[in-house]
Amino acid sequence: MDHNDNNVLVIGTGLIGTSIALGLTAQGMNVFLSDIEPSALDDAIKVSGAKKYLDQEIKVVFVATPPASVASVMASAAQAHPDAVITDVASVKGSIFRELEALGTSAWDRIVGGHPMAGREVSGAIGAQGNLFLDRPWVIATSDKTSPEAIATVKSLVESLGAFPVLRTIEEHDRAVALISHTPQVVASVLAGELMDAEGSYIELAGQGIRDTIRIAGSDSNLWTEILSENSEFISQQVTQVANHLLDFASALESGNRNSVTEKLVKGNQGRDRLPGKHGSSQQFIATLVVRLDDKPGELARLFTVAAQANVNLEDVRIDHSLGHPTGLVELTIAPSSIPLLKPALEVESFVVIS
Amino acid sequence: MDHNDNNVLVIGTGLIGTSIALGLTAQGMNVFLSDIEPSALDDAIKVSGAKKYLDQEIKVVFVATPPASVASVMASAAQAHPDAVITDVASVKGSIFRELEALGTSAWDRIVGGHPMAGREVSGAIGAQGNLFLDRPWVIATSDKTSPEAIATVKSLVESLGAFPVLRTIEEHDRAVALISHTPQVVASVLAGELMDAEGSYIELAGQGIRDTIRIAGSDSNLWTEILSENSEFISQQVTQVANHLLDFASALESGNRNSVTEKLVKGNQGRDRLPGKHGSSQQFIATLVVRLDDKPGELARLFTVAAQANVNLEDVRIDHSLGHPTGLVELTIAPSSIPLLKPALEVESFVVIS
Repeated sequence: MDHNDNNVLVIGTGLIGTSIALGLTAQGMNVFLSDIEPSALDDAIKVSGAKKYLDQEIKVVFVATPPASVASVMASAAQAHPDAVITDVASVKGSIFRELEALGTSAWDRIVGGHPMAGREVSGAIGAQGNLFLDRPWVIATSDKTSPEAIATVKSLVESLGAFPVLRTIEEHDRAVALISHTPQVVASVLAGELMDAEGSYIELAGQGIRDTIRIAGSDSNLWTEILSENSEFISQQVTQVANHLLDFASALESGNRNSVTEKLVKGNQGRDRLPGKHGSSQQFIATLVVRLDDKPGELARLFTVAAQANVNLEDVRIDHSLGHPTGLVELTIAPSSIPLLKPALEVESFVVIS
Repeated sequence: MDHNDNNVLVIGTGLIGTSIALGLTAQGMNVFLSDIEPSALDDAIKVSGAKKYLDQEIKVVFVATPPASVASVMASAAQAHPDAVITDVASVKGSIFRELEALGTSAWDRIVGGHPMAGREVSGAIGAQGNLFLDRPWVIATSDKTSPEAIATVKSLVESLGAFPVLRTIEEHDRAVALISHTPQVVASVLAGELMDAEGSYIELAGQGIRDTIRIAGSDSNLWTEILSENSEFISQQVTQVANHLLDFASALESGNRNSVTEKLVKGNQGRDRLPGKHGSSQQFIATLVVRLDDKPGELARLFTVAAQANVNLEDVRIDHSLGHPTGLVELTIAPSSIPLLKPALEVESFVVIS
């Protein structure tokens, strides 16, 4: 294998681009970075151990720039690297392929759309992690002109990052993210917006429920304007449908139709149960334990020490709102197979396991 | 003070009733319990250390039964205990006062509406905690015929449970909970319901965002049918308003009006920022630290041990989705004053603090 076969270029060194660079460097690839912001580039080089791009020969280009510039950067990269596979990480695919078409690209066989479904609660190179993509879906969406070799190249890099490649058509991908990512953003933002019109005396009573429901309303408004605008057609269809279902719910309440209200709540229960587990596994592969903590300092640390000693991985931890003073309920999300390990281990250490 | 002045009766021994019993018993009150289900009553007696009610003379009655029965239980309690103050814990107040009126109650001076704004993620006596209400708002909502003495009695018990009493009119309370509790429930249920109509290939891609947004869609459908039906007028107004704002959002997307999209997202940012902190304090009194965990077992336990040793209370802990394998980002919510304590303590122990 030619040494240059390992040469990867990452354009755009935010959280995602730098995490790709970190992960691929760790896998022995030669990763080069470029960014129009010199300071962002310097940070990413420090964090990732990758090198600055200086016209090296490149086999694969990852475009990880802000959404609006992705298509034009991909088109230029295809010209600059006539043998390279060009892929991206943008969260909408149709608009990028339409723009590539408008730009008159002729490199269709080498262009592979990509979308790692990984969290972005922090941004910038400093939050990058080589394992950001571990066990996460990474959608690969292509035109029918893309060569199987190009797809295989991206697939293998995605797998080397620990993600699992998921093949979708462009439309399937964009409809899916409209439903499971973009519409929730719109709904959370609109619901949070209602608080702006409300009296302070109402908001003082808010608890954990609304806090979770509108958590993502804190997202970056400029980035999300870009994302939503790129996928506006499918999102507006889906948001309109949610609005109509809310109007149906309001009618059921007004007319006192309790059966209809219950039906709609049950449909919500069932819909929530369809969500996959944390790592793309089905919901039935996760379980929860609720543990009561005594009113003593250090109980939380003790709880996690017991879990670590029992070799149990915690998928998630939720602390009931009444914490803050060092007592309350803690919900641990774990694999069902860990329950027989963790429950007795906690009880031996005199924790009260509630369910 | 007559010994009987400390006699409190709690009717209904679910999570809230039993938690009240636990908390008041710990404060030296004589608490008696009753429940139409003998096994629920037995559980609550075991958990709380309170006694079974056997016609003792009672000074204050807490009615903590399911929503639909609250008014009739309050009316009977008012007759059975002609000198007692009668209060409840139901999450809607107007419907109860209207039903009391319809029942022809004459005990208005002794009836005090109450609503502890405390979490109910688990149900039943077994999840009860004496400090469930600590630092939580407890709304007191009364008719104008309620005596100041009755209000003062309930206020003082609420304070002895560690909650802070918040006086509201019945309408203020019901409009507030329609906005901050009931409408989020409807929105989460409707959004989760959309997943029932979706293809599995779409749902496989779901991540943490929608998971948080629809978390409360897992709520008990029968209990919530009762709650929503009791407050249907205000909820349907608020839900209709959300639906109309969603339709506006869809129009802005369809017409490509990016400024309008950004405005709506910014309004969501601002609305979310109005939420109070965990303990009724304002948002500005909480801060977050994001810590990166290395890929080594026991790192989470070590993190919490450092926090405990630094005497820092964790208000909340959020583990980034990529955990499950023992590495990832952990977001700690703490008091801003704890940052100068915790950050250096973590760094000394070689944790990477990102923000």
